[in-house]
Parts: sequence; C-alpha cells; structure tokens
Amino acid sequence: MRIDLNCDMGEGLGGGLEVDEELMPLISSANVACGFHASDPGNMHRTVRLARAHGVAVGAHPSYPDRSGFGRRDLAASPEEVRDDVLYQVGALEAFCRAEGLRLSHVKAHGALYNAAARDLPTALAVAEAVRDVDPSLWLVCLSGSAHVEAARRTGLRHVEEVFADRAYSREGRLVPRSTPGAVIEDAARVADRVLRMVKEEKVRCIDGTDIALRGGTVCVHGDTRGSVELVRAIRARLVAEGVELAPFSREERA
Amino acid sequence: MRIDLNCDMGEGLGGGLEVDEELMPLISSANVACGFHASDPGNMHRTVRLARAHGVAVGAHPSYPDRSGFGRRDLAASPEEVRDDVLYQVGALEAFCRAEGLRLSHVKAHGALYNAAARDLPTALAVAEAVRDVDPSLWLVCLSGSAHVEAARRTGLRHVEEVFADRAYSREGRLVPRSTPGAVIEDAARVADRVLRMVKEEKVRCIDGTDIALRGGTVCVHGDTRGSVELVRAIRARLVAEGVELAPFSREERA
Amino acid sequence: MRIDLNCDMGEGLGGGLEVDEELMPLISSANVACGFHASDPGNMHRTVRLARAHGVAVGAHPSYPDRSGFGRRDLAASPEEVRDDVLYQVGALEAFCRAEGLRLSHVKAHGALYNAAARDLPTALAVAEAVRDVDPSLWLVCLSGSAHVEAARRTGLRHVEEVFADRAYSREGRLVPRSTPGAVIEDAARVADRVLRMVKEEKVRCIDGTDIALRGGTVCVHGDTRGSVELVRAIRARLVAEGVELAPFSREERA
Amino acid sequence: MRIDLNCDMGEGLGGGLEVDEELMPLISSANVACGFHASDPGNMHRTVRLARAHGVAVGAHPSYPDRSGFGRRDLAASPEEVRDDVLYQVGALEAFCRAEGLRLSHVKAHGALYNAAARDLPTALAVAEAVRDVDPSLWLVCLSGSAHVEAARRTGLRHVEEVFADRAYSREGRLVPRSTPGAVIEDAARVADRVLRMVKEEKVRCIDGTDIALRGGTVCVHGDTRGSVELVRAIRARLVAEGVELAPFSREERA
Repeated sequence: MRIDLNCDMGEGLGGGLEVDEELMPLISSANVACGFHASDPGNMHRTVRLARAHGVAVGAHPSYPDRSGFGRRDLAASPEEVRDDVLYQVGALEAFCRAEGLRLSHVKAHGALYNAAARDLPTALAVAEAVRDVDPSLWLVCLSGSAHVEAARRTGLRHVEEVFADRAYSREGRLVPRSTPGAVIEDAARVADRVLRMVKEEKVRCIDGTDIALRGGTVCVHGDTRGSVELVRAIRARLVAEGVELAPFSREERA
Repeated sequence: MRIDLNCDMGEGLGGGLEVDEELMPLISSANVACGFHASDPGNMHRTVRLARAHGVAVGAHPSYPDRSGFGRRDLAASPEEVRDDVLYQVGALEAFCRAEGLRLSHVKAHGALYNAAARDLPTALAVAEAVRDVDPSLWLVCLSGSAHVEAARRTGLRHVEEVFADRAYSREGRLVPRSTPGAVIEDAARVADRVLRMVKEEKVRCIDGTDIALRGGTVCVHGDTRGSVELVRAIRARLVAEGVELAPFSREERA
Repeated sequence: MRIDLNCDMGEGLGGGLEVDEELMPLISSANVACGFHASDPGNMHRTVRLARAHGVAVGAHPSYPDRSGFGRRDLAASPEEVRDDVLYQVGALEAFCRAEGLRLSHVKAHGALYNAAARDLPTALAVAEAVRDVDPSLWLVCLSGSAHVEAARRTGLRHVEEVFADRAYSREGRLVPRSTPGAVIEDAARVADRVLRMVKEEKVRCIDGTDIALRGGTVCVHGDTRGSVELVRAIRARLVAEGVELAPFSREERA
Repeated sequence: MRIDLNCDMGEGLGGGLEVDEELMPLISSANVACGFHASDPGNMHRTVRLARAHGVAVGAHPSYPDRSGFGRRDLAASPEEVRDDVLYQVGALEAFCRAEGLRLSHVKAHGALYNAAARDLPTALAVAEAVRDVDPSLWLVCLSGSAHVEAARRTGLRHVEEVFADRAYSREGRLVPRSTPGAVIEDAARVADRVLRMVKEEKVRCIDGTDIALRGGTVCVHGDTRGSVELVRAIRARLVAEGVELAPFSREERA
C-alpha cells in the first residue's frame, strides 16, 4: 500500500524557502512554480535542489501569466496561448532539473489554469499537448474525473488522478467550492483519517454524509494555509503508522 | 567557402513579425529572444516556426531581465544569477524547438550580457556552464577573441567566434564603441565588401586604415537599424555572387 | 460644429514612436498606455511630450495586467483589483503630465477592461471610482450607451460617449463583433463619410442598412490597422473641408 | 526631543502583510514599495490603508525595475531612465494616498538606487527632479552626508538625512559594508542605546571605537532581519522610556 503526497513549492518571496524547507521532507512530489504566478529563476533552482536533497520527485507547476493575481483568476487565453505558456514554463523548469542531474517527473497546472483544464477540454488538450511536446514520458496530474484526464488519454500521456486531503467533496465527486461552509477541513486528525480512507478503501465521506468512491494516485496537500506544516506532518505520521508507504506516483515507471 | 549569417529575431512587439519575415530568408542562424529583454511565449513559437520554414538554425538569445532597457544596460548580477537566468531562458526556448521537431543549435547572449561575458570571465563561465547543463552539444556564440571564448573552452563547449558586418574594429581587434564617429558602417556596398574580405581573406581594414587579421565563424547582421533588410540583402547577394555558400555554422556537426 | 478624434498611443515597442509621430498631429485626444498592456516609463514620458508638442489632450489608457495578451483578454479580476490597477496606472501617467506642465484630461480603459466596463456595472464602477479618487475633475471616456456611462453618472464624473469611425453598428447601437463580415470598414472615404454624418446628423447607417441615432462626443480612430495613418488623415481632411473643428472634448471645461 | 523611525513596507508576498501589521504600530514613517522591486497595486493599497490606520506618514519607495534581484543590484540606468522610473512609481503610489484621503509625505529610494543616489550626483539629481516634478512639497530621504543631500538642496526639495540603527559607521561617517565583521549590530539593547545617543547627543561610536558626530532626522529600521520586530520594539520602548517622542519628520511642516 503506497501513496504520493504532492505539494506546490517555490511560491514564496525572493528566495524565502523557509516553509518549503519544512514541508519538503514530508512529501513525495513537488510541483515547482515556474515564474508566471510566482518564483523566479534563482528560486526555482533552489527549490529543485531542495527537492533533490530530499529525494522528492520534481514536477513543473505552470500557470497563466498573472503574478498580481497569483494565477488564481480566470483568463480568456486561447488554446494556442495556453500551449505556448505551458511549453515555455515546462521547458524552463526542465533546464534546472538537468542542471541538478534530475529528470523532470510530471506537470501539474496551477490555480485557474488547473481549474480551466478540469472543465474545458480544449484548454486541457492545450496543456496536455504542450507537455507531450516537451517530453512524452512526463506524467500529467489531473483533477480526478475531469476533462483534464480525458485530454491526457487522448494525448497518450501517462497521468495520475489527484484527490484533496483537506477539501470536502460533493456526492458527484466534485470539490465543494471554498465559499460553502465546511468546504475546507482544518482539523488535522480528521484530514489524516480521510486520507487514510482514500488510500485504503478508495472512499471518502462526502459533504452530505454519504460515502462515495474516490480513487486517486496522488493526494494534494497545501503549504499556504494556517498550520499547514502541522497538517501535513499529521497526515504523514498517520499514514506511516498505518503502514502506508509514501512514494512519488512517478517512481515505479521511471525507475 | 562558406559562412554563416546570424541575426537576432523575435524582438518585435506583440507578435509583429514583419521585419523577421523579411530577414529570415536571408540568414542562416537565428538568435531568438527568450522573454527577458523582448518577446513572449507566443512570439517565440512563431519565430521558431518561421526559422524552421526557412531552414534557418535556431539559437537561444538570453538576456539580463531588463525589458524596459531592452537588455542593453549593465546589471550587477552574480554568476549564480546569470547562470539561473540563462538556464531558464535556454530551457524555455528549447521547448519550442522540440514542439517544432527541431534541435536547438546554439546560444548567443544578448546585449549587456553578451558584453559582460566578453570581458568578465566569471560571467562568461556562468553563461557557458548554464548552456552546457542544458545540453553539452550546444554551440556557444562568442565575441571573437574574448573571455567568452575562453569560458567555452574551459567548459568544453563547441563555440564559434563572431564578427560584425557593420561595425568598425580597432587595431587590437576590438569593436569601436558606437559613440565613436565611424563606428557603424551604413553603406551597404562597403559592408558587403568587408564581409566578403572577412570570409575570403580573414582580414578586415580597421578604423586607422591598416589591415588586421580577423577570423570568425559567423557574421552578425542586424534587423534593427535603418534599412537593415536592404543591408542584409546586399551582403547576401554579394556573397552568393562570389560563390560563398551561406550555411549555419552548426550544420555540419549536427547533421 | 466640433468633434474630438481620440487615438490610443504609446503602444509601440521599446521607444519606437514612429507611427505615433505620424498620428499625433492628426488627432485631438491621446489615450496613453500605462505599462500594463504596453509601454514603459520612458515611452510614456516621450508620448506625453509628443502630445504636448501637438496640443493634444492627454488621457490615461489603463488595462488589465496582461502584457503578452496586449490587454485584450478577459480576466476575472474583482472590482477591488480593477480599482487598484486603475489607481496605479492613472497615478503613474499623471506624474508624467505634471513633469510636462500638463493637466491629465481623461481616462479611457483599454481593450478587455473597456469592454468589461461597458457590460458589467461593478467593473464600470470600480474604474469610475478609481478615476474619481485620483481627480474628480477628470473625464471618463465610455462606450456610447453602456454600463460605463451609468457608472460615470453615479460617480459624478464628467464623461463623454465614444463612437467608432471604422466599425459597423447593429440596429441596437452596439458594435458588431469583429468576427462578423462587414464589421470593420476599411475604405477611407466611407469611414470619413460616416464620421461626418455622426458629427453633423448624429446618425449612422447600421449594418442592416437602416439609420439609427448615434450620439458621441469623441470618435475613436486606430493606429494599428493597415493603412491606419492614411485613414485618419482622410477623416481629418474631410472634417476640416466640411468646416468641422477638431478639438479635445475636454478642452472647454478645462480652459 | 523627538525622532522619526522609518521602515520599508509592502515588500512581502501576494498580500501577505503579517510582518507589516506588527511593525506599523511601532514606526512613524513608512516607505511603501511601488511594484518595481516588490509589491503590486492591491498590496500597495493595503499597505497605505494600514499606515493610515496607525497614523504613520506614507512615503514612496521607488526602485530600479528589478524584481528578481529585489532592487538590490546596480543597474546602468541613465539619469533619464531613473527620472522616468521614479516619476512612474511616485505617481502610482500617490494615487493610493489620494484614495485614502492622505497626502504623500516623502520619497526614499530603494536598495541599489538609494546607494547610487548617495554616491552619484547625476543619479541623485534625477531622483530629486522626479520627486519635485510630482510635488515640490514632498520630502526626500537621503543618506546622511551623501550626494543625495546635495541633489535635494540643488532641486530645492525639503530633505531629511537618514541614519541607521543597526549598522556600524566608519570614522568618516559612512556605513561599513555588510561584508565587514561587525557591520550589522544584532543585539537589541545595543541598537536601542545607539539610537538614543544619535537622538540625544547626535553622536555614534564608530567601528574603530571613537565617537563621531552623526546627525539625522530619521532612523531607518528594518523589517527583514531575524527578530526585526523585536529589535524595533526594543528601540521604541527605550526611546519612549527616555522621553523621546516618535513622530514623522514630515509632520510639523505639513500640519
């Protein structure tokens, strides 16, 4: 029994890697910001080096070009524009991996681009084609059950479905919007329980109290909420205590 | 007898490739701006596609991060910062080459970074090491006789020495600063004559009227001076008329 | 009988003001890009100086922060974000006006922000409130008959309704989308005729051939279409020949 | 007996004002980043609002355009470029002050631009002239005894000389470079003592152990060093305990 914990990294300011340094030993895959919503070349290099030091798989975390909105705002970019932005960012990050003797493992779109790829097939195809054009052996991280998964399939990319540790799900298996009460689960023990059940039973209790099937190859954890490091530490401790192995989803295929 | 004509490309505005479209059929190697002094992902992709359509070798043209100064201003960047900026930009451009089924051919630093690499060995080494780390088979374009050449040697990179078609040289083989009268040669026939002599005799008449030896594997032409397209057309016509073949310096090695 | 011709300015590359220099003598109000979709501080200063030399009224032309999309893409910015982006850009441009001894005359939103303010009242109010907060005596340029006009009224701002010289109108007085055949009128004589009729009769022949009332205090001309300078020259010549005076809409109030 | 404590503000990430919120109640003048080395419009607005809530005087903190280097790297910008960059940034910040019903109090250049203005008169004049052109009643914050002071005098600007709480001085009254051992004083009690003596005796013990005269109208404190909030708290407590009043240097003139 094994699972991957992935976390966005390198999103801090001007080289400030403090939180990243605490989180990196706890996770198995890092999604590294590529300069469009956060980070810069120096920060990217330090983040890649930090991931390498902890044996964490490195993925690119491309975004819409929206620094002041942290990549969280919808942008009416055409599929061509999305493809070119993703090519640019994934290529840039891959260079740092090569400089550190690593292979880039995966790509996970950030924020509004991730959401657009989850619901809009042309956008999802643009992301997937860009990833394939950089390297067809890369993994694509997709929201479980979304258009992004379909795009990965059509493009022939290996992909992994992502589930969320601290977010409530609807009966249909969708993320409950953050604005809904109860959408974000902050209690560390409860979050750890949920992750364990996702891994062991492939089920989650959804917001209306019933159980639904939920299958995912990687669990997203966050470094930006209050007490996030403690939350991740609790999840990890619980998983380890229950005998679940933490390893990058991309590991076995790439060995 | 063959020579390479290289030109900076993709430096125009918002996708405006008009001048590039006129110049591309006339040259053999293109140095493509990577977004730090000019261009953006969409423009980079269009420029790479245009180069491909004309069989022109594609190189990266990385710069200091200085859009408002067009990369022409000295910046006190550390070697680490230079290395990271070059890794980022070369990686980004290479992604577009892959998307178009091309191999990236070379790297030529832009503006103030090119000049810094020509005179300052630590900066030159930072550029060369970044290029090597992305791909040790890349060519590095260096100012003839400069520290940049030395850095390429130490790093084990293939390199080509660059000479300038429309710029006056001092007796020591250095470029006469633009502020000196006579530093820029605008007469097309004279420029074409100079290039021909550089190619055939490996000599140039320097600013004090004497001849000096000048050996270069690629001749830089510009697309941004008044009448620049006509100038390049004149050079090309003259070379062809004299039986000189135009071909990328990187061609034979990479075939 | 008088009318204002307004044109977007300072949108060219790295100080390249060639087209601006040809257009400035032909217009009466300039909307100066503020660095978010195009331009930079040096270019803004040169553009303001050029406008001053030709007695052209200077307005700010703020945009969504979207350089690679030239401010033409919808961005899901909140009203607070719009207000702060407009405050920033209008304040920045006003500084150049002061340095040149000019008063800033007006504000006209650019591209997707202009369109959003035309159809969405909260966005329009955010723009208008930012303008009022910088200087309540500024004019706001609004699409004729749009939510933007309503926002100007509610905010107590002086405003002028804008009509388009080279764009077809629907029977409802709306701009026909560019994707519709016939949406853009390229024939200079026809465009000049339309402008003259807008000014003299406050009417325009709409796309289905009937006449509609159309009242505007300023006519937008463009510097970015093929032959745009010739088009503006034709409009101006025609207006002058018919005895229409060209003057900034903001002139009389501010004298 | 009164003194001003000034601190750079708004330099954090994506709206993260935590440290600013702790520091603002402790200081009397805030230098607000303007987007060229850090911050963005939303962050600037929040910082200005925070200063207003604490009765802190608001100044602009313009920088070279160098986000990835945090404005700390020398850039070979011409005086014209410096002037235009300062006009842009000061104008932008002033708009937020107006929106909050405040008057902008002062301008303090950031990082490498501050240092360049301290040693190079043409750069210092460019900064001072830009400030004067925005508003001749603004104060200019200058390194004590530097070219920047001379530029303020020539331009007719009110100015205040700045001294540093936690930095060692040479016998000539210059800041000892950070690379020298002992250049930065980290002990809170010692720093508080030094400030008190600067205020009461206009003297400081310099690095070789002798006393030198040092006169300053404002004391710079930092929010970015380890334990910086505690340091500022200690300074403030000490000053208050000794009956020194904390007030903006710009207060009496502007009342």
